[in-house]
Amino acid sequence: AGSVDLNKCGMTEFVGTAMGDTIGLVIANLDESLHEILGIDKKYRSLGIIGARTGAGPHAISADEAVKASNTEVIIFETSNDTKGGGGHGNLIVFGAEEVSDARRAVEITLNSLSWAFGGVVGNEAGFLEVQYTARASHVLAKYFGAELGKAWGLINGCPASVGMLMADAAVKAADVKIVKHCSPGHNTCFTSEFTIFVTGDSGAVKQAVLAGKETAIKLLRTMGGEPEAMAKPYF
Amino acid sequence: AGSVDLNKCGMTEFVGTAMGDTIGLVIANLDESLHEILGIDKKYRSLGIIGARTGAGPHAISADEAVKASNTEVIIFETSNDTKGGGGHGNLIVFGAEEVSDARRAVEITLNSLSWAFGGVVGNEAGFLEVQYTARASHVLAKYFGAELGKAWGLINGCPASVGMLMADAAVKAADVKIVKHCSPGHNTCFTSEFTIFVTGDSGAVKQAVLAGKETAIKLLRTMGGEPEAMAKPYF
Amino acid sequence: AGSVDLNKCGMTEFVGTAMGDTIGLVIANLDESLHEILGIDKKYRSLGIIGARTGAGPHAISADEAVKASNTEVIIFETSNDTKGGGGHGNLIVFGAEEVSDARRAVEITLNSLSWAFGGVVGNEAGFLEVQYTARASHVLAKYFGAELGKAWGLINGCPASVGMLMADAAVKAADVKIVKHCSPGHNTCFTSEFTIFVTGDSGAVKQAVLAGKETAIKLLRTMGGEPEAMAKPYF
Repeated sequence: AGSVDLNKCGMTEFVGTAMGDTIGLVIANLDESLHEILGIDKKYRSLGIIGARTGAGPHAISADEAVKASNTEVIIFETSNDTKGGGGHGNLIVFGAEEVSDARRAVEITLNSLSWAFGGVVGNEAGFLEVQYTARASHVLAKYFGAELGKAWGLINGCPASVGMLMADAAVKAADVKIVKHCSPGHNTCFTSEFTIFVTGDSGAVKQAVLAGKETAIKLLRTMGGEPEAMAKPYF
Repeated sequence: AGSVDLNKCGMTEFVGTAMGDTIGLVIANLDESLHEILGIDKKYRSLGIIGARTGAGPHAISADEAVKASNTEVIIFETSNDTKGGGGHGNLIVFGAEEVSDARRAVEITLNSLSWAFGGVVGNEAGFLEVQYTARASHVLAKYFGAELGKAWGLINGCPASVGMLMADAAVKAADVKIVKHCSPGHNTCFTSEFTIFVTGDSGAVKQAVLAGKETAIKLLRTMGGEPEAMAKPYF
Repeated sequence: AGSVDLNKCGMTEFVGTAMGDTIGLVIANLDESLHEILGIDKKYRSLGIIGARTGAGPHAISADEAVKASNTEVIIFETSNDTKGGGGHGNLIVFGAEEVSDARRAVEITLNSLSWAFGGVVGNEAGFLEVQYTARASHVLAKYFGAELGKAWGLINGCPASVGMLMADAAVKAADVKIVKHCSPGHNTCFTSEFTIFVTGDSGAVKQAVLAGKETAIKLLRTMGGEPEAMAKPYF
């Protein structure tokens, strides 16, 4: 799982695959008609494209790492109601680039980062929690998820949504953080069974809040099914 | 399944679990920042929270019973597209209360009522029907589902949506009832594969209409898969 | 599966079933109250109703064949986020007719056409591609999917959405076609994990574009799971 695969399909556009049924591709010269219908800035000749059936948080923080280390901008970040019936999101993320090598680099970094970013997703047959944390948010988290550039940012999310709400209350009571955005089944999301808050503050406080949310959710998920398991090794 | 569990996780906020991956929680003193972002009336210091992966109808009629017998008001009733790929809803329901004991009572009644309310859901591998009936609707059904306070109310729903449409036609032809609200995949719902009507009228007529819808759906579902089974003992 | 069944449930309203948990029904005299809430033209006394848990493209092209050969009009075409967690759509399609025999005929043709139309859906455990093609689009494809009456029309769709984007780029580079509509997870659809374009042009070009998209997707899907399989024999 989760790495840039040797070209398994003989297509130059193929970059690799990763957890969550994620596939990463590049288009060197996007067709003009697509450029137009998608309203993409002409300067972006090339695109890096990530699409997945499962995940939004892991892909957001991974794409944020990618734009830190490549000359690209995320120009489309759309989420779907998917996770193959798991109650959460799938996604489509598009990097704009002037050179296809920049686009390829961004997709490679995103695919590789997913192997640690999925460490923030812990679940069982009844639901899941997701936590993400960065000490230094970049353009993707700022543009789409309320982060402040260069500052700490955290994601606290739970499914079913009542788990997420209790996580949120525990998190904001555990440390001095600010809620910059929230999502619930009928608000700001794709009708997923989740309650989510995004928080900022100094890095110690954000990490403390996020971990308090995680601890709450693990206890609650245990009452609903088997021992919750992380999709990858937790990275904080 | 479906009752207030002895405290399985050592958290005072935990009330219990029930069918449909439902978990019921309370928050004695909601954090101020959450109060604000959710736009909750300051008088509601405490919240009772229900969240589920499967169900909207069973939870609506159960929460309606809860507000009849507790000093609470439902302030959030949101549905999601979930049922773990089953074509229907999940939900998030929030009771506002001035005392945490009222909030806890409302959550307990809701969790306990789900064990009969899921008797209205009958399905097989292809789809399902849902019917709900009450002779005396209270505030939840009035606020969110078109009921008249104190009057009879019925829910007639089928998945796939063509089943629901035939149920609706059969129901309104079977008795003198009034359609107060309807939902279809692209209208008034979360893109679920359902067609639903909510009806009012005198109690005998509402019950007759709902049962006519149910009978129609069972015959249709039989043509698409195995013998349809109820998720709990039918309560009417 | 997928043909008009001998009356398996003893109901005159039952017409038959087909792939994708599709069920076809008719209502000879729709109840007035339903006529009203659905805003259906009074001249349409009878309805033909198709509902499915899986599919939008196959049902669109099949319903288009049906209106070519019956005195009906499609008055409702709604899609849901379903496919039982498969990342795509379910649907509700309603034909208006002045005679119930017309409505029944439209439903029969639709059900029978699905057995070839599902030939355009090819998938594995990670995702799927969908391609549809007609040399002569009729009213359904014109009204809901951007086709020009009597002209060639093609559908190019992939899940996860990054697969669909690459299909689209390959398709419009392969032949001189025009994109008349597009859908992505957050645009023009029900939050499904798909990227879709609909194209018109002369029939040879449309077919060439659609096949180029298909070829691209099969290579990509192979990198994500088992050998992709068609749900029915490809019809072009």
